[in-house]
Amino acid sequence: MTVVTLTTDFGVTDPFVGIMKGVLATRAPDATVIDVSHGVPPQDVLAGALVLRYAAPYFPPRTIHVAVVDPGVGGSRRPLVVETTDALLVGPDNGVLSLVAPRDQMRRIVHLTEERFFLSPRSATFHGRDVFAPVAAALANGTDPSALGPPVTDMERLALPAVTRGASSLTGQVIYVDHFGNLTTNVSESDVTADVTIALAGVRVRGVARHYGAVAAGEPVAVVNSWGLLEIAVRDCSARETLGASVGDVVVIERR
Amino acid sequence: MTVVTLTTDFGVTDPFVGIMKGVLATRAPDATVIDVSHGVPPQDVLAGALVLRYAAPYFPPRTIHVAVVDPGVGGSRRPLVVETTDALLVGPDNGVLSLVAPRDQMRRIVHLTEERFFLSPRSATFHGRDVFAPVAAALANGTDPSALGPPVTDMERLALPAVTRGASSLTGQVIYVDHFGNLTTNVSESDVTADVTIALAGVRVRGVARHYGAVAAGEPVAVVNSWGLLEIAVRDCSARETLGASVGDVVVIERR
Amino acid sequence: MTVVTLTTDFGVTDPFVGIMKGVLATRAPDATVIDVSHGVPPQDVLAGALVLRYAAPYFPPRTIHVAVVDPGVGGSRRPLVVETTDALLVGPDNGVLSLVAPRDQMRRIVHLTEERFFLSPRSATFHGRDVFAPVAAALANGTDPSALGPPVTDMERLALPAVTRGASSLTGQVIYVDHFGNLTTNVSESDVTADVTIALAGVRVRGVARHYGAVAAGEPVAVVNSWGLLEIAVRDCSARETLGASVGDVVVIERR
Repeated sequence: MTVVTLTTDFGVTDPFVGIMKGVLATRAPDATVIDVSHGVPPQDVLAGALVLRYAAPYFPPRTIHVAVVDPGVGGSRRPLVVETTDALLVGPDNGVLSLVAPRDQMRRIVHLTEERFFLSPRSATFHGRDVFAPVAAALANGTDPSALGPPVTDMERLALPAVTRGASSLTGQVIYVDHFGNLTTNVSESDVTADVTIALAGVRVRGVARHYGAVAAGEPVAVVNSWGLLEIAVRDCSARETLGASVGDVVVIERR
Repeated sequence: MTVVTLTTDFGVTDPFVGIMKGVLATRAPDATVIDVSHGVPPQDVLAGALVLRYAAPYFPPRTIHVAVVDPGVGGSRRPLVVETTDALLVGPDNGVLSLVAPRDQMRRIVHLTEERFFLSPRSATFHGRDVFAPVAAALANGTDPSALGPPVTDMERLALPAVTRGASSLTGQVIYVDHFGNLTTNVSESDVTADVTIALAGVRVRGVARHYGAVAAGEPVAVVNSWGLLEIAVRDCSARETLGASVGDVVVIERR
Repeated sequence: MTVVTLTTDFGVTDPFVGIMKGVLATRAPDATVIDVSHGVPPQDVLAGALVLRYAAPYFPPRTIHVAVVDPGVGGSRRPLVVETTDALLVGPDNGVLSLVAPRDQMRRIVHLTEERFFLSPRSATFHGRDVFAPVAAALANGTDPSALGPPVTDMERLALPAVTRGASSLTGQVIYVDHFGNLTTNVSESDVTADVTIALAGVRVRGVARHYGAVAAGEPVAVVNSWGLLEIAVRDCSARETLGASVGDVVVIERR
């Protein structure tokens, strides 16, 4: 079974994702297509890269991940296939593929120039349909990436914001807010211990709890979440709403 | 074909559901995965139980239903597999599985303790990925529930709010509001006849209509809906918005 | 492989779509079910027809498209199967099937009267579950449309609003607004050239650009979109919000 995943900022109200699946069903009827997320905020390439980074490890080897967060569609940004040790990645060269493909896991990057694999005519606004879905179908059918265009040596790379380390504190930030309003930060599990104080959006939390239930309903709590990152939640509530927090907000970790 | 369904409060913006599907595709590639709903209101265990109750009868025999509305994730609530006469249910022991599994259709309940079936390491915030999806995959592959842990004798049970019967009236409440703003109550088809008056949120409706089109656009109408329950709608509009109604609102049925 | 697609106004919060998929999995386990969209605005038959028109060409030949935007459910409107040169269409006779089935591509229309193909009992509020999904399953299993009911000679037809052609200008309107806030009009590619001025919602745009990136972020831009129609966008923003525009707004194209 070949799996093709889709990660986009297309949302779920329009038929755009369905149309991509139509192209895949037409050209690669045996592939299994799985939605990773279509709720990436519009044009937010970093959020798309982050989502793909934390989802891809849970898919079978050689899964084909298609990521279309593509504000430069129709312009000069290159369409790419990236082969890593684990997977094949398909998408625009704007960084959306970069967090899931660290340099030491890269095998090759191919610039998609062989237009015979694309739909024709090709629109200037929907390369998910006209370029990336048909290329994913070709890969699912066993086409070697080398047939799709010439190899290139590097691609646009994004970096997560880095944490700042002080003498007795560490400063990070909120990098993702989920549907529950939980606040994921860029602070790793290895940077937090039970004896820290965490300050964010005007509240202070003592220590990292084992799970949400360690505090009463409505109270803030810090946990290490499923991405291995420090997360601030408000039990049974939305931390985004309760604390008025959002992506980019500063979090300070102090050793007690 | 083995069907695995997913019912969660994860929403559709984050990659959480996609990640669960990645685990299923990796471990049970031949299973067919179907979303029942990911729009259960956050932490609303009763709503999740209700959704599963009314959806499950439409799936093939021996379908594996995974329900993850799990505010106690990472804490002491037990993860369960429940076998009924029709299906296998996987989820936390908080009642989310209880409305679809009445006592007279139960075969056994298993406490999921065999950690070798889980993902490792196991997070404290996402047992959908680390516990419930891998267990569903094991069941889809034919693992007997008895291999997953010891049998237990009962589980947390929720009850729908009951109706109150008076001499000439019956009092119920709104238990579910759908995307259209239609108001589903806990009043059964057998409790309403054509010659009743229904009062809810300040409006009075005479009789139960055969279908929405029995009244003019913008007018309130009572019907028996697809769950066999009394529903109040406003034709071509949202009863939730038009009437300002929500879950818990009282409905009174009077015989004329 | 037989593909069944679903286009509805059911949204993604309730289990209604999942229930339809349960019926399909039970009765036609070998069919592949693909969501086109469930984000059609409630009761907006024309929007549903438009979505299906622009999605259907990207699916395999003989795909079965089920469209349920059905405010008259339970009333006297007829349930239909429509066979075109490319596909089978299933849905209510209210026009939702008409834009994807121009008269010259029609083969036959069948009025669904053979109740033995339906679920029993049949609700008055959810024919997606009780009529259209089981009929789609029958078609997927190879049932000839003639077995489902008698042929009829025509069906309800909708028309897109027409453009008005003046001596030096053309007047159209916004017919669809997508998740990004981009405004699709009823003006065809053949009606716009590089030397036009486009006026909509108080802004004037000169010429049709090759792609969104032709203007600076925050600036309005006109492109021919993936449906071959004139679209007004605001780069990296929502034209709906920035311009305060919506479906029905007038667009005027003037030759310079």
